[in-house]
This record gives sequence, structure tokens and C-alpha cells, in this order.
Amino acid sequence: MSSGKGAAVIEENLHRVRAVELTRFAAGVLTAWGMTPERAQGTADLIVESDLRGIDSHGVAMLAQYERLVSDGRADLSAEPVLVRSTGAAGLVDAGDGLGHLAMKFAMESAITAAAELGVAAVGVHRSHHFGAAGVYATMASDRGMVGLVATTTRTRSVVPTRGTEAVLGTNPLAFAAPTEDSSAPFVLDMSTSTVAVNKVRTYDHLGVDVPAGWVVDGSGESVTDVATAHRQVRAQSGGGLTPLGGSEATSGYKGYGLGLMVQVLAGALVGATFAPHRPSTQVPDDIGHFCLVVDPKAFGNGELGASVSAIVDELRAQRPIEPARPVLVPGDPERAARVERLAHGVPMADALFTALQELGVRAGTDPLQPMREAARAAVANAGSEG
Amino acid sequence: MSSGKGAAVIEENLHRVRAVELTRFAAGVLTAWGMTPERAQGTADLIVESDLRGIDSHGVAMLAQYERLVSDGRADLSAEPVLVRSTGAAGLVDAGDGLGHLAMKFAMESAITAAAELGVAAVGVHRSHHFGAAGVYATMASDRGMVGLVATTTRTRSVVPTRGTEAVLGTNPLAFAAPTEDSSAPFVLDMSTSTVAVNKVRTYDHLGVDVPAGWVVDGSGESVTDVATAHRQVRAQSGGGLTPLGGSEATSGYKGYGLGLMVQVLAGALVGATFAPHRPSTQVPDDIGHFCLVVDPKAFGNGELGASVSAIVDELRAQRPIEPARPVLVPGDPERAARVERLAHGVPMADALFTALQELGVRAGTDPLQPMREAARAAVANAGSEG
Repeated sequence: MSSGKGAAVIEENLHRVRAVELTRFAAGVLTAWGMTPERAQGTADLIVESDLRGIDSHGVAMLAQYERLVSDGRADLSAEPVLVRSTGAAGLVDAGDGLGHLAMKFAMESAITAAAELGVAAVGVHRSHHFGAAGVYATMASDRGMVGLVATTTRTRSVVPTRGTEAVLGTNPLAFAAPTEDSSAPFVLDMSTSTVAVNKVRTYDHLGVDVPAGWVVDGSGESVTDVATAHRQVRAQSGGGLTPLGGSEATSGYKGYGLGLMVQVLAGALVGATFAPHRPSTQVPDDIGHFCLVVDPKAFGNGELGASVSAIVDELRAQRPIEPARPVLVPGDPERAARVERLAHGVPMADALFTALQELGVRAGTDPLQPMREAARAAVANAGSEG
Repeated sequence: MSSGKGAAVIEENLHRVRAVELTRFAAGVLTAWGMTPERAQGTADLIVESDLRGIDSHGVAMLAQYERLVSDGRADLSAEPVLVRSTGAAGLVDAGDGLGHLAMKFAMESAITAAAELGVAAVGVHRSHHFGAAGVYATMASDRGMVGLVATTTRTRSVVPTRGTEAVLGTNPLAFAAPTEDSSAPFVLDMSTSTVAVNKVRTYDHLGVDVPAGWVVDGSGESVTDVATAHRQVRAQSGGGLTPLGGSEATSGYKGYGLGLMVQVLAGALVGATFAPHRPSTQVPDDIGHFCLVVDPKAFGNGELGASVSAIVDELRAQRPIEPARPVLVPGDPERAARVERLAHGVPMADALFTALQELGVRAGTDPLQPMREAARAAVANAGSEG
């Protein structure tokens, strides 16, 4: 449902890599950085799931940042998440300064187990790092016929509060998933609480396309549309930045700002994780916090939640659209379409990212990433030598 | 934090009514409509709490709609909410087609009790009607040092989904409250998932002030700013309507649309309440659904949540604002300021509303509403006759 303008331009200069190959590569790198092979495989699966869903900014593109966390000694890839507290329907996981992926998966599994017994459960995570795309974890609940809500704090100050002059909050994302009658098509909302994510501005900058008014403001609250200026504004952290969802005060940007703060309270304050402006330095672990809630509809006497949700989303999909070629979608539709396409044709990757990953692989001492055409050629060559 | 433009103009033509007098009047009317005096008092307290917080659209202004519900036989004011299901940390309340206020208060109290024991609890409500302002109930949790989330479906189709041509969803509000170190100043986010509420457009129409671009769209997705056209558009339900939070697709309106659907799933599908487009007719009870979640921070080992939340909101309030006269606020600040002012000086009321309430009182056969000046005059007269 995001603007397709960028994607069409990128498509011209693309590598395609099969998901299984991308997972092998990511797992190899993580192992080289000190993770056990089993945990590296599990983490790589979750990373590549983001790429499959088309959430490119949260998949293998993050490996470069993870590399810096490891080399700076801020992340401990040998850490194992531990359930340090469990009372009734609530739990708390200490991620031990490791990456967030398996810590969040563990938290979600704990919440699902508790919700199956008590109807509702919430589990928090602290001392964590980036965990990829929030929707990946929320979907774990809908896969079991339950409702899942996931929130996380973020490391970078990028969002300017309503009436403010400087970025204070992160993009603090929120995801929500519920089952439908079609198990392959759950309802999955996965969104930052800002108008757009930092990476969307970066993508536009790489393409040289100006950003729409309302995405980025300067230190006086004025909208910035020149893409180079906008990208500088978002990166510089010296006044201005991203707008909260809703944009300006006149169009209720304070609601998006309030949602960002809600996420900060749930996934930060409640679970004992830090607030970025109060982090003592950039040299310490990020101490990112996550929060998840799972609700079992059976506890509400609702054994047919999938049918009820399907009735709603089918009504929406059947709405008459403004343009026939652009139908009304529901949350999860674009990610599912991307997943089908990418499972069949590989994950598309711009040349800059592909090259950066290859260089990262060299530094880690792992086998290079095989794009699809070369892999296909190798398969043909192998078949020839064996025949 | 809403635009003050309207308020300044309204201020010229105002009645002021003390909260206690407004509550007496509302309770009298509800009793005349068939509610027990005790329940009428409890409902009136919750209604007037909206007015005190400055959420005028959800307070006594709703009595006219409640009157129609009663006269049409769609609401049963003698109904008592019943906890029809309670398993572990989950519960379900049947509101019996009564008004939503005491049903939601009962649900929230049940959730608070269960959360104190199990750390987390969620309670749903179905067969309900309008319950006033969601933030009033979320605050019940923060008043006990807990975190509260409240969502509700709405009766009227007013929000146009991204890419769509007609209003499908209601404004489906969401509220979230958390304690701070100052018990009189909790964090309270109370927002519709649309850019603005229907009543905000109505208020602008009454004032003859055009609405900002991005609030209302026509059936082609074009922004409508002429206020008379915009108000017609929102009321007509024949193409166009309110935008979801975020506005157009280019500024991520699909996120607000997704949040509205999330509320529809939690407070509608999950709890077994209807989806407005599927309601068989306008002649049956609304079957509005509500949902609340309560989290006890102690279950997360956090005995100091108030201090952690204060550290966050104080950081925000200390931000340098664009205009010194318009400081950076946090959710709950505008409502708290309104409450202090209105407790001291009475609830301000435009002449049209004041007159409508007096007429409604006559129909119900209750004592008229005494505005402050007249009440003060009466007090002086009484003092004279008694002296």
C-alpha cells in the first residue's frame, strides 16, 4: 500500500536472490560473528522473512548495522534470552544485549502459551537490540488463531513532536495481527508511528525523487520536499526530522506523536528499557525494549474470529475504488503479494545493497551471496559435469 | 492540542454551567427515561467527565442522540451489564442494549481486579451503545498505577478507506493511559483513528470557518475545504467522508485506516459486536462493542512506572517549541487544563446546545438547567430571603 513510485525505478537495476540463499548467507555471517549455528539459522529466518514481505529496510539491509554493533562491542551475539520474570499472564525477557529477533520470538511464544491458558498474556523484553519487522512476530499469534500486538522502541531519534523543533522519539513501530478464514491471508498491520520511516526518505534520495510535503520538517516546522535536504534533515539530528503520523498539528499529527509515546511507555518504560534521549552514550548497548500482547478469542467465547475478521476485510476489499486498477486493500495485502512474488522469483536487491553485503561477507570470511542467475548457471554447469 | 481557532470564536456566545449542576440535570433526564436513580447518577458522572475534559462532543451534547435511541426503542435504559464470561485473565460483558458508560466502567473494574492478580487482563463488551470518551475509562487504570488501553466501535460510517470512494469505518477511537509521578497528571491519549471526528467538522460549519485540506475528501478522493460542502459530505454518506489519520495515501493515511480496522477487530469482531456496514437496519440496537486491556507494571518488576513515564513526558515538555507561546505538550495536558478551568468556572456551552438541552429537559419533565450566573443570582436571592 506504500507508494510504488520508488519500486518501479529500482526494478531496473536489480539482483535477485532466492530466500534460501539469503538465509544461508545471513546465517553464515551471524555464525562468524559469534552466534551458535542453530541460533544464527533462527535469526536469519526471521531477518529474511522481512525481505520476503517486501519490508526491505528491516531485513538483510540491517546486517551492516548489526556488524557495527558487534565490532563496537555493543551487541553480544552469544547472548541467550532468559525469562527473568513470569507471574500469571505477564512475563519479562532479558535479551542480554543480543539481537532482538530470537528474544522477541521467545517472548511471543511465551505469550501464546500463557494466552492459551489464561485467555490473555503480555510479555516484555529489555536489554535488546533491533528485531527486524514487528509484523513477523504479530503473525505468530494469528498463525495460532489468536490476536497479536507487538511494539518496540527504536534506537535513533528521528521524529519531531508536535510544536517541537528537534527529533526526540524514534519511529516506534506497532504491529497487530488477527486470523481470517484464509490461513495464508491474516490481517497484519505493521507500521511506524511516524508518517514514513527513515529508510523511505533514504530510498527517495537514492532515486533523486523529491518527497511529498508532510513527511519531513525543518527546525521551524516547515515542510521540506527537496529530497537531498530532507534526507540531510532526517540524518543530521540538528533540528527537524520526520513528522509523526498525521503530519502537522492542523491535520492531527499530535495523534501520531501520542501513539509514538504510547509505544515508548509500553515497550520502554513498562519493561525497563531506555528512552533514547536518556541513553548515557552511543557506546553502550542500545537497551531496546519490546512488548507483545496475545489474546485468545476462545476466551471471549469467540470460536469464529477468523470468519468475523474475514467478513470485515472482505467488505473493505469489495469497496469501489477511486481507480479500478488500484483496489482497496487491507493491512497485510501488500506484504503477502510481495511474499508470493519473491518466493517465486527471489528477493530483489539494488546493486548498492548487493555489493555492500558481498563486502560484509568477505570481512566475515563467509561464502559469497549467489544471485539467482549465477546460481542457475552453476546448476546448469553442475548438471553438465555430472551428465 | 487541537486547534484553538473554533474555541476562541465560540467563547463570545456562551453559557457556563457548573459540573455538579450539569450532572444533576443529566441524571434527572436519564432517570426520566427509565434508568434507576443510582445508575443515572453514575452515568451522568461519566458523561460530565467528558465535558470537564473539554471533549464537548462526547458529553452532555450526546443526550439528544440518547433520547432518540430511547424513543426508538433501540436502547434499554433499564439494562444492567452482566459479566457473561470470565476465564483467567479475560472477560466478556453483555451490556443488554443499555448505554455504554456503566457497562464499560464495569468492564474496566473487572479488568483492573484481574490484572492486579494476574498482571494483565482484557475485558470486552458487546450489545452496548455509545459510552462517551474512551480516555475516561483508560484513566481508571492509571489512577490505580496501572496501564489501560480502551477501544470502541462506533455507530456511524464516516471514514473513507485508503483508495476507496465511500465511508465504511467509524471513527473507531482508541485511548491509552499510564501513571506518572504526579497522580493528577497521568499520560492520557484519547483519539479517534480518523484525522478528525465528525463533530469537529460540524463545529467549523457552525462557525463558518473552512476546514484544513486533508480532513474531508469527496467521492473522488479530492480534499474538500469549503466547510458547508465538507459537512454535507460527512453527513450525506453518499460518497466521500472523513480521512483516516495520516490523510492521503501519499502521507500514509493507510496507517490510520489500518488502526481503525485494528479497533474494529478488537472491539467488534473479537467481542462479538457488529460491524456497522453489516448491521441489518438502523431500527435495531446499535450493538456497539468495547475492549479494554489493563497491565499491572508490578508484574513486569516495575514498581516505578510513574517515575519512568514522568522522565519521558518531562523530556518532551522541556523541548524547545517552534513558538514560545505554544509549548510542546503531551497527551492529557489539554484535557487536564480544560478540567481545571471548567471545575473553577463551569462548563462553557454554546447557545444552541444550551437551548437544545433545555428543550430536552422539558420533554423529559425534569427541572431546567441552571447556568452559573442565574444560579449565582438565585443563591444571592436565597441568602437574602433567609437572612
